[in-house]
Amino acid sequence: MRSQLDGAGGLRHLATLDGLGRDMLVAILDRAESYRRFPGQPAYEGRELAGVTVSNLFFEPSTRTRASFDLAARRLGAHVLNLDMQSSSRVKGETMLDTLYTLEAMNTDIFVIRDSEPGMPDFLIDHVAPHVSVISAGEAHLSHPTQGLLDVLTIRAHKRRFAGLKVAIVGDIRHSRVARSTARALGTLGTSDLRLVAPAALLPEEAEFAGAQRFTRIEDGIAGADVVMMLRIQKERMASSAALDEAAYFREYGLNGERLRLASPSVLVMHPGPMNRGVEIASDVADGPRSVIREQVNNGVAVRMAILAAIAATLTRRRKPL
Amino acid sequence: MRSQLDGAGGLRHLATLDGLGRDMLVAILDRAESYRRFPGQPAYEGRELAGVTVSNLFFEPSTRTRASFDLAARRLGAHVLNLDMQSSSRVKGETMLDTLYTLEAMNTDIFVIRDSEPGMPDFLIDHVAPHVSVISAGEAHLSHPTQGLLDVLTIRAHKRRFAGLKVAIVGDIRHSRVARSTARALGTLGTSDLRLVAPAALLPEEAEFAGAQRFTRIEDGIAGADVVMMLRIQKERMASSAALDEAAYFREYGLNGERLRLASPSVLVMHPGPMNRGVEIASDVADGPRSVIREQVNNGVAVRMAILAAIAATLTRRRKPL
Amino acid sequence: MRSQLDGAGGLRHLATLDGLGRDMLVAILDRAESYRRFPGQPAYEGRELAGVTVSNLFFEPSTRTRASFDLAARRLGAHVLNLDMQSSSRVKGETMLDTLYTLEAMNTDIFVIRDSEPGMPDFLIDHVAPHVSVISAGEAHLSHPTQGLLDVLTIRAHKRRFAGLKVAIVGDIRHSRVARSTARALGTLGTSDLRLVAPAALLPEEAEFAGAQRFTRIEDGIAGADVVMMLRIQKERMASSAALDEAAYFREYGLNGERLRLASPSVLVMHPGPMNRGVEIASDVADGPRSVIREQVNNGVAVRMAILAAIAATLTRRRKPL
Repeated sequence: MRSQLDGAGGLRHLATLDGLGRDMLVAILDRAESYRRFPGQPAYEGRELAGVTVSNLFFEPSTRTRASFDLAARRLGAHVLNLDMQSSSRVKGETMLDTLYTLEAMNTDIFVIRDSEPGMPDFLIDHVAPHVSVISAGEAHLSHPTQGLLDVLTIRAHKRRFAGLKVAIVGDIRHSRVARSTARALGTLGTSDLRLVAPAALLPEEAEFAGAQRFTRIEDGIAGADVVMMLRIQKERMASSAALDEAAYFREYGLNGERLRLASPSVLVMHPGPMNRGVEIASDVADGPRSVIREQVNNGVAVRMAILAAIAATLTRRRKPL
Repeated sequence: MRSQLDGAGGLRHLATLDGLGRDMLVAILDRAESYRRFPGQPAYEGRELAGVTVSNLFFEPSTRTRASFDLAARRLGAHVLNLDMQSSSRVKGETMLDTLYTLEAMNTDIFVIRDSEPGMPDFLIDHVAPHVSVISAGEAHLSHPTQGLLDVLTIRAHKRRFAGLKVAIVGDIRHSRVARSTARALGTLGTSDLRLVAPAALLPEEAEFAGAQRFTRIEDGIAGADVVMMLRIQKERMASSAALDEAAYFREYGLNGERLRLASPSVLVMHPGPMNRGVEIASDVADGPRSVIREQVNNGVAVRMAILAAIAATLTRRRKPL
Repeated sequence: MRSQLDGAGGLRHLATLDGLGRDMLVAILDRAESYRRFPGQPAYEGRELAGVTVSNLFFEPSTRTRASFDLAARRLGAHVLNLDMQSSSRVKGETMLDTLYTLEAMNTDIFVIRDSEPGMPDFLIDHVAPHVSVISAGEAHLSHPTQGLLDVLTIRAHKRRFAGLKVAIVGDIRHSRVARSTARALGTLGTSDLRLVAPAALLPEEAEFAGAQRFTRIEDGIAGADVVMMLRIQKERMASSAALDEAAYFREYGLNGERLRLASPSVLVMHPGPMNRGVEIASDVADGPRSVIREQVNNGVAVRMAILAAIAATLTRRRKPL
């Protein structure tokens, strides 16, 4: 894969948080904070993407992430094409590359791509024109960089530091792109105490998540944690990999009020959504005073605005004169 | 359900016309008239909803009503999210409440909701944040308030008064949210002579539509009427409830030219659409000189603009300062 | 069908290129050139369609053409309704005419219509109100006027003349609306040397494409050609009509590098997309130095902007005063 930065160090693509340094991440978070408006405030409206066309290519169904990117782009003044790739010309046999060339020829400036298979973001990055950018909105189990960024933005807003934080991630980490991207962002920003909690079959390979501690009992994993991040259970995977039904999963790994008392009194409860209430998390915890789950969604729009604006600024520098 | 008005008497939500007084209705109709542009005139374009995000949640398929709300919001400067709730994260098991919280966290200001089951608008109103509003775009057989408003706007434009009008509603009144909302709006504005016409099985329960006369012969019901409002026949209901086929229904209840001569010479023929031509209404009547059916559609956009603008003004007063 | 021009000679509808004279075509191409921005340049953004509502009615699935019209309209400031006619009220039994009346009543100014059956654009033109326009985005095998225009715009950009050009169209011409519209545009602009190349079963009726030469061997048809325009093979038609499988088709009619050397050294290779690489065209030719296929897509947006702007100017003259 080509570099995600251009020659001047500006953000050109975002497929992964690997290789992005601490300063870049902090700059993105700072910019996102400037765009963030809490519910009840008027949303930020700007012209940073005026004249920019964003094409959303979602090969997986997604309400939340697509709406988040869509609003982020439109609130900055972009034109957005939402292409439903199920009913598109892919069914006519058009290759992905021809779709890319076609949308580029229509002056698409930024592609936002989600796919359940690995490789599509890199493939696009390798093939887009010099004035076009690619943002991953989720790639297989590998990467979900804007989710990683919104997670650390949410943590920063409450904790103001990353060094010394104890962060527990609980659930199907093996198949989770969220866990991978968030762990990467935390590592880059200085968090070294990461705890992975899952049934053995859902823990990642040993080579991954270097330096993290692994737990199969949730009580052990979240003890004293400053952040507990619950992952969505994919029911089809749970059945095959871990031979647990929903009730059993909740009994053994669900975050309920009693378990939460094992964590730090100032713990943040996080979840990337959508939640299975009563499976990985109890409703009273999801809606309780330690939960920042809705803030994560709010920060998601702000982070995507920041990424889009940073990339648009890079593209503007690269654009040919009229 | 909470009140639809805020403390200062401004319109906050619209789930039903029940409880909205005459002055409020007149104010909405006046505002709608100011937004109305006839076909052939440039549509009204304003900034009343600048910076406002409207999320359309349609659990029933709808071309007309969704397009009407969509255009109304965009012509006033809003960002609109059209969420197809069939293919959304509801299928992933996300609860409605989490969808609500998620879209609120993305700074949705106004939800427009249509559902074939009763209860969803009230449920949303009970759970939205203090700075968020809900508009029903159709709730089961119970309520379709913007349709009721566009109907009375259409009548007012031609009749200039409501007291003393004879209004006949013909068709499957028992299952019709349109009939309920329009009857409510007419009652509030002073129409007391309402006539309900249907096969016995499609007339409403006795307790409903207080004061209305009931007829099973259309000739009796529309005699001397100033307004004849035909309802769309739902073919599946007709079959089971009334044991009439389409041809028989048209023979017994269809509005044709001959029957129309029983009404007032200045009668208005109305239909909420989409029409079954040749079932509940003859084509020459639908397109004839007494028909105001297309005006109803035109007024629908204007009424939705008025409701959106009134609610946005209420929200602006409630918003937290930056 | 009514005339496509209004009394003052302005473009009112576009269902076919038949009957549009050379001056009109040149004016459209000139205007399109003014809107064209190459990939890497910021797209043209204007207000020519401010206050205009465009309703896209696509009865055939289409990613490319719909996206092209959608972006063209929005970049000129229009509101666009994208109506998926599969899941629309057509399924509720609403007739096309009622859909038309409904969208007109919502102040739709321009309909863009695609249908696999013949007749829909003319039907709409015959029924729209005096202040409403219709543009065909593809009608059965008969007409695809904006494709014809983008093809000649692409040719003009490279060749600067039409008289004396040798143009070969290769593929399923019998069923191709692209071939019909492009041939018409070329004829109007002065190209008389048109060559049609196909298996006998896929050549058009003798009465069509008057003056064109017909070839069943591609080598004969493209010899010395200035332009070679490959058509997309519809696999289902190939099977039934011509009894050729994909490999056999490529062997006999596919455009590969060896065959391309029979054409003029300055030949333009064109394709309306989406391509079947390895069926009607070799990948190295599609992406090679003589290919202008991506320019066609780029010109497609520009041509649609020009048509929309020309029609909007006509409508403005026809609009009723407020």
